[in-house]
Amino acid sequence: MTTRTAPSADDFLADFRTMSGFGATANGGVDRQAASQADAAQRTWFRSILEARGFTVRFDRIGNQWGLLERVPGAPFVVVGSHMDSQPTAGRYDGAYGVLAAAHAAFRLASAWDSNERTAPKYNVAVVNWFNEEGSRFKPSMMGSSVYTGKLALADALAVTDPQGVTVGEALGAHGFLSDWEGPEAAFCAEIHIEQGRSMERDGVTIGLVHSNWAANKYEFVVHGEQAHTGSTVIADRHDALLGASLLVVAAREIADAFPGKVHTSVGQLDVHPNSPVVVPSRVQLLLDLRSADEDALAEADAMLHRRVAEAEKAASVQVERRTSHSWPVTPYQPEGVELAAKAAADLGLPYKEVMTLAGHDSTNMKDLVPTVMLFVPSVDGISHNEHEYTTDEDIVAGLAMLTEVVGRLCDGALED
Amino acid sequence: MTTRTAPSADDFLADFRTMSGFGATANGGVDRQAASQADAAQRTWFRSILEARGFTVRFDRIGNQWGLLERVPGAPFVVVGSHMDSQPTAGRYDGAYGVLAAAHAAFRLASAWDSNERTAPKYNVAVVNWFNEEGSRFKPSMMGSSVYTGKLALADALAVTDPQGVTVGEALGAHGFLSDWEGPEAAFCAEIHIEQGRSMERDGVTIGLVHSNWAANKYEFVVHGEQAHTGSTVIADRHDALLGASLLVVAAREIADAFPGKVHTSVGQLDVHPNSPVVVPSRVQLLLDLRSADEDALAEADAMLHRRVAEAEKAASVQVERRTSHSWPVTPYQPEGVELAAKAAADLGLPYKEVMTLAGHDSTNMKDLVPTVMLFVPSVDGISHNEHEYTTDEDIVAGLAMLTEVVGRLCDGALED
Repeated sequence: MTTRTAPSADDFLADFRTMSGFGATANGGVDRQAASQADAAQRTWFRSILEARGFTVRFDRIGNQWGLLERVPGAPFVVVGSHMDSQPTAGRYDGAYGVLAAAHAAFRLASAWDSNERTAPKYNVAVVNWFNEEGSRFKPSMMGSSVYTGKLALADALAVTDPQGVTVGEALGAHGFLSDWEGPEAAFCAEIHIEQGRSMERDGVTIGLVHSNWAANKYEFVVHGEQAHTGSTVIADRHDALLGASLLVVAAREIADAFPGKVHTSVGQLDVHPNSPVVVPSRVQLLLDLRSADEDALAEADAMLHRRVAEAEKAASVQVERRTSHSWPVTPYQPEGVELAAKAAADLGLPYKEVMTLAGHDSTNMKDLVPTVMLFVPSVDGISHNEHEYTTDEDIVAGLAMLTEVVGRLCDGALED
Repeated sequence: MTTRTAPSADDFLADFRTMSGFGATANGGVDRQAASQADAAQRTWFRSILEARGFTVRFDRIGNQWGLLERVPGAPFVVVGSHMDSQPTAGRYDGAYGVLAAAHAAFRLASAWDSNERTAPKYNVAVVNWFNEEGSRFKPSMMGSSVYTGKLALADALAVTDPQGVTVGEALGAHGFLSDWEGPEAAFCAEIHIEQGRSMERDGVTIGLVHSNWAANKYEFVVHGEQAHTGSTVIADRHDALLGASLLVVAAREIADAFPGKVHTSVGQLDVHPNSPVVVPSRVQLLLDLRSADEDALAEADAMLHRRVAEAEKAASVQVERRTSHSWPVTPYQPEGVELAAKAAADLGLPYKEVMTLAGHDSTNMKDLVPTVMLFVPSVDGISHNEHEYTTDEDIVAGLAMLTEVVGRLCDGALED
């Protein structure tokens, strides 16, 4: 095995600039929805940089892209990565940074093992680009890691359709991103991501050690009214589905305001039917989320929401159907992983603190399968899911160094037992 | 000229059943948006029944379909008709009834003139199927009659695009529904339509004589917020365009409730951007209407709306742009036309009353060009813009008799001077 020089921080930044060109938008963001042309082009480029460094690139049965470096034949893998798909008008860092940092961390470790700077590892390394973390084109989000961890049935995931009726299976198959393989055996996992909040920037720390995630209750409501003429139908005769839906959007904010700083609520998606200028809407479908770090506050907020649903039904003379619901509690990442990461940050001289994640990540799934370390770097002004999302070069380079050290220690077996 | 027997009421009902098959939906309604395949198929069928009765069928420069019966060479025309396009999930009667009744009224008059049951007319008859009255695929509504009456520039109308980017000109051209012709010269106009309200049913009258239309203010608002992550972005940092829009929807209803029975408000169309589950919406576009028969009440309601817009901007930390606005006052149909129709109804023994129209119609445009008679038949339960829209066979046959008599008298010159 020949020793290769590890890519430099400048090489990393150059690769990141290249990535940001895939699906680039006019306002400095990206549009790389899952299995789109831009997503596919970026995956093809990512394959090339992995293969150039001697990694074996494979796609599994749900289109997760794996770069395998097997230095210990037959041993399980330390899985490190994130996702390269994006929201429709997204920033450059969300997910993409974590995948590229994972690859460069693995490149650095390979060189260090080759040159005997580091002792030979006990585990292999698998760089992963999870499929469809964002869930904007195909629902639900975190699809690739959900199938890999057994939380979502493969057949159900492959049958999901986008708004044009294209299935996940068709979209992945068209790009050659599917196989029968279940993916490598994981022993440990690590992920790095931007914070998507202001707390680390405010406190002046470079590395966030994620100790747990916020709890969330997510609902898909369908408001059923009755189609009528907007001009001639008297108000008392109306069953206005959009009025009912709007009352829920307003209620969601009022509920958040009742728990200042403790409960986050939102409606990100809302579809009106038939959505014609002179027709009272007959049906509105919307997605409403409640999130909190405090499970008791979340339960209170949820009870308020259900009272408000009943009030909206009455006020707009509509029926509100709770079509689907999905919730998760506050769950910890393994404390020994947080401890390992704290030691690594201290050894590297990087300022750090423990944080919670408000958003879901693929590591949220992985931590239920294997011990998992989740790291954050700061987000300038906390901007996220926005083309103006930004993290400094200094911070993303520091995060790469941190991730390299964490993955190196995981490969050394630091979390065994 | 050979005398042809006039089609019977049963023939009329059979033709109406045939029409209701074009674009028929599973729930008993129709989907015949302007220049769609279903609209085109129905126009082709309509041409055939007009030509079978000796009418000359022509399309004008904005795709209005004309059936001309020229019995007085060189004389202007009594224009009678409505529209055959529909909302996406519409009822069978709206517009379509008025076009078919116009054709059968003309067939009956032609036979009556041929057989000398009626004295020879002083004016010709033009049956018209106005293009795109509904405005669901191409905005604005009442497009064909607006161009014909000079209220909308031809070039502007032809350049309007549907959500797929197809222009009116392309859509009409693809079906061969365009020419350079400006349409026939109108002297008088008549239209019959379903009431789309409950007042006639409640009062037990068969014929409504429309004396004026409600005033309306219509606005296109665009709410500008900022895209953010629904989970991680703290509430105070959000600029939620959907919250701002929802406050406007709720305000619209509260304004209507402040003027019980006097002001109608609605938001029929609302589009969210980027409309993704975990993204705080950055932009929402919506159409908001205020209508009233009382112009003072409308002005008060409008002032309330503008106060509420400012409040919504503050509450949701968004900017609300008033992109377009369009309004019309209460305007009368010519009183001598109402009087003519009242005499005709009395002579036919049909119970009638004067009514206002809350909805816009092509006759709303035509009345500003020539003396125009607008007639209603009742709507069961007032249901409109809904697949369950219904008017009894008895009432649509009575309306046909009424329309025949009105058009006959207009052709006789009853409204001259």
